[in-house]
Amino acid sequence: MAVSIEEVKRLKDLTGVGLTDAKKALEEADGDFDKALAAMRKKGLTKAEKRGEREARAGVVGTYNHDNRIGVLVEVNCETDFVARNEIFTNFVKDVAMHIAASAPEYVSSEDIPAEAREAKKAELLASDALKGKPADIADKIVDGQLKKYFAERCLLEQPFVKNPDINVGEYVKEHGARLGENVVVRRFSRIALGEVS
Amino acid sequence: MAVSIEEVKRLKDLTGVGLTDAKKALEEADGDFDKALAAMRKKGLTKAEKRGEREARAGVVGTYNHDNRIGVLVEVNCETDFVARNEIFTNFVKDVAMHIAASAPEYVSSEDIPAEAREAKKAELLASDALKGKPADIADKIVDGQLKKYFAERCLLEQPFVKNPDINVGEYVKEHGARLGENVVVRRFSRIALGEVS
Repeated sequence: MAVSIEEVKRLKDLTGVGLTDAKKALEEADGDFDKALAAMRKKGLTKAEKRGEREARAGVVGTYNHDNRIGVLVEVNCETDFVARNEIFTNFVKDVAMHIAASAPEYVSSEDIPAEAREAKKAELLASDALKGKPADIADKIVDGQLKKYFAERCLLEQPFVKNPDINVGEYVKEHGARLGENVVVRRFSRIALGEVS
Repeated sequence: MAVSIEEVKRLKDLTGVGLTDAKKALEEADGDFDKALAAMRKKGLTKAEKRGEREARAGVVGTYNHDNRIGVLVEVNCETDFVARNEIFTNFVKDVAMHIAASAPEYVSSEDIPAEAREAKKAELLASDALKGKPADIADKIVDGQLKKYFAERCLLEQPFVKNPDINVGEYVKEHGARLGENVVVRRFSRIALGEVS
């Protein structure tokens, strides 16, 4: 079927593949942009993940300030200064900083959760009234699910991206890795809200 | 003696006192601006310190970004939203953030240094070759001096202010407390430099 050149271009820009591949994906999806994007995303991710071993040492420290009441710093690394100076990259970093201001994550990814924080939350959940009288193995299973949900909500890469809640921030990052042709990593962030206990 | 009205105004702006007091201070200092400022500073400090007990809960979260390579957040509290929105206050916060970017302090004040950090540094200094063979009480005295210097260089409020190294940041903060008529407190900050180990 015929697909519009605007859609092909948009898909190309979003995924970092060539025009031909974008056109092919749209045709295979019968012109359904979202379906084609989902397919491209998979390819994009695969491309980005292969680069996972290469080191990301260049990058940008982005700042975001909301109304002088919330401030955010985020360090996002890429592999070359060339990409670090690219406007697509700097705008992407700004978006991540804005997301952090809005969604207040506590960790970059689940790997950054300290064991003590996980243990403390687990003990708290296990002590809840709702679990009283339940067999230990069942209580454990319930609490494991609750823990997973609790920390997913607090990990930046697992949060739904505020500007497009259909994907999470991790997918948004990988998309830009694919688009820019480099390994892109959110390394750390800091968020200060006026009057909040640190 | 006659003093220039420009100098009187400058002194008034800098210290937060009235025109008459500024003129009097300049006259008493025989027109020596720095001497008058030192005298005014003492009065200003006294004024600000009296307000020390009142709580500072309003304020501004300031951000500063240097060349996409260093980012700074700083929370500075004052007592009212009225002052928080004042341009003098917001510019002052920007100056403090800029200072933090340039001088990379680790703590706001000496009260924020963790006991373990102090102990670890003390042990390190005591083990130095230069102290070998010295009596324990002398070694202790030398190390206490070194410790004081080491941490003073790392405490924001004790660092010489980058835009005017004649005063330290603590004095700069108190000056603005006096000028704005409120208790002004630097509460916390965060600094991220690209590629630096956190």
